[in-house]
Amino acid sequence: MCDWAKNFTFVPSNLHFMETIKQLQQDFADFLAKTNFNGQPKELYEPIAYTILQSGKRLRPMLCLLANEMFGGDEQQALWPALALETFHNFTLIHDDIMDKAPMRRGMPTVYQKWNADIAILSGDAMLAKAFQFALKPRKGAELAQQLGKVAIEICEGQQMDLNFETLGDVTIDEYLEMIRLKTAVLLATALQMGATVGDATTTDIQHLYDFGINMGMSFQLQDDILDLYSDVEVFGKRHGGDIAENKKTYLYLKALELASEKDRKRLAHLFTLRIDHDEEEKIEEVQAIYDRLHVKEAVEQVIAEYDQKALAALKAVSLPEEKKTHLRNYAELLSGRKK
Amino acid sequence: MCDWAKNFTFVPSNLHFMETIKQLQQDFADFLAKTNFNGQPKELYEPIAYTILQSGKRLRPMLCLLANEMFGGDEQQALWPALALETFHNFTLIHDDIMDKAPMRRGMPTVYQKWNADIAILSGDAMLAKAFQFALKPRKGAELAQQLGKVAIEICEGQQMDLNFETLGDVTIDEYLEMIRLKTAVLLATALQMGATVGDATTTDIQHLYDFGINMGMSFQLQDDILDLYSDVEVFGKRHGGDIAENKKTYLYLKALELASEKDRKRLAHLFTLRIDHDEEEKIEEVQAIYDRLHVKEAVEQVIAEYDQKALAALKAVSLPEEKKTHLRNYAELLSGRKK
Repeated sequence: MCDWAKNFTFVPSNLHFMETIKQLQQDFADFLAKTNFNGQPKELYEPIAYTILQSGKRLRPMLCLLANEMFGGDEQQALWPALALETFHNFTLIHDDIMDKAPMRRGMPTVYQKWNADIAILSGDAMLAKAFQFALKPRKGAELAQQLGKVAIEICEGQQMDLNFETLGDVTIDEYLEMIRLKTAVLLATALQMGATVGDATTTDIQHLYDFGINMGMSFQLQDDILDLYSDVEVFGKRHGGDIAENKKTYLYLKALELASEKDRKRLAHLFTLRIDHDEEEKIEEVQAIYDRLHVKEAVEQVIAEYDQKALAALKAVSLPEEKKTHLRNYAELLSGRKK
Repeated sequence: MCDWAKNFTFVPSNLHFMETIKQLQQDFADFLAKTNFNGQPKELYEPIAYTILQSGKRLRPMLCLLANEMFGGDEQQALWPALALETFHNFTLIHDDIMDKAPMRRGMPTVYQKWNADIAILSGDAMLAKAFQFALKPRKGAELAQQLGKVAIEICEGQQMDLNFETLGDVTIDEYLEMIRLKTAVLLATALQMGATVGDATTTDIQHLYDFGINMGMSFQLQDDILDLYSDVEVFGKRHGGDIAENKKTYLYLKALELASEKDRKRLAHLFTLRIDHDEEEKIEEVQAIYDRLHVKEAVEQVIAEYDQKALAALKAVSLPEEKKTHLRNYAELLSGRKK
């Protein structure tokens, strides 16, 4: 998940924009450094500090701070929901890693691997509670905490759908889209919503930004599905075709099933039952050949373009002068790798 | 944990009191029945409904409603934190049962046993988020959610201490008391605190009620330690000496170590390393003989009496006419089995 964010590269095409981004990232880093994640018993608190203090892109905090800045809000207030979002996001990683049996994350052993599953469950629980505490701190805290409560439940729903898909024979494209909406897009949307809320935006503008976030999130995740197979491994830093090797039913696969002849459909379905110890390269090549023949990549790019259009329309609908929206739009383009 | 609550028996010594209790229990049951715990995917929501709709004593909701009633608060408002507390409590049970590998609870298979650990983690997470949503609903929601956040983190600390004690060689009496304060007493205290908060009590009175709850909780938990060994199994419904069989370092054991001669101490420490497949009856008998010789039960009863005294003093300090406090005092006595 979220591999699209690895595309994040700074190019000084817009000096003021880049300076703003750097400043907000620094402000958040300082705020995080001031936050006390120590406590007793240490078995509970060490995994919390270990996880949240790892360097990360701080994508959700950045979206929150940028949304707040758009409306001229007080950054000191917005840092609280930014911290709540990052703490919440890291809670989901700790619990997801148990379920996904993921040994590594960000090049480090996962919490359940480094300590154990009990500790990972408990530290995660404490982080979820802490996220609510942080959301409650600034003005409009009750509203921010309600937004966090809603997204927290949605993300549990998304993760459960994702778990179901592993064993489910047939997943529809609509179900897949709903899963990535719940698992990825809603948290980006909520980050913008929280920033706009603390920045005193109107209800209508908050909703427009939320819609921008949903569509941007959908676009990013679908790009991620494409990048997994079609990106250069050196640039993208990930094994080429990993989703295929792991039989992950991504949008590419589901779209291919939709477009395929009966014969190709059967072959694809068969290939996606092969275990990981099968000849991986051969399998990936064969699947990619089918995808290419069916023009699956282009079909997905078409869907991405539609989400991008909807995202831009939502941002356009925000009742601010267009120049106020530049930073957020640039940031989204940076993340998607389309601004170099 | 919480076995003292099994002592709950209704005797019509105080008709008005009993009617109030029954009415509040019915009101909470109705409120719970109106709450929608359904949703998609069903793998996430079925375990939530399964857990929270099991019949229970609804102890924490009752404390919340009684505290609110004391101050003449609006019951409709207090039902929200009552629901938050019950939802939160059930979240802790679902996650604790994974860690404790407990196959059964309330005579039913636990969630991780009936479904699986991933589902138990996720449903628990969703319940924790739902608890915050419920706490945020009534007036003073931000304050209630802050109280919930604080207690949630304390309970994680308590559970982690309890996990640590399983492998830790030496646990001090102070550490044990801190563990049961965090694992049991703070949630009872918070239930009273939330009820008093929504009932518009003063900060000072809220603190007195919180202190009452802490001391009552400590007293209950220590009684539970005694009851595990000394109660009649037919009345108490639990295997006699289960804590000893499982090598649980309860207050009785720690107090015995404190009072014992070097020889007894060594023998006790040895007995508490024997695995559960050892001759259980013999072990329990030998440990009880040592406890009896050292008058451990009386020593613990002395400590309980001190907590009871502190609890009563805290309740006395609440700035209300004494007759307003009758229901809560009677309820606490009912729970402790001292009011028949």
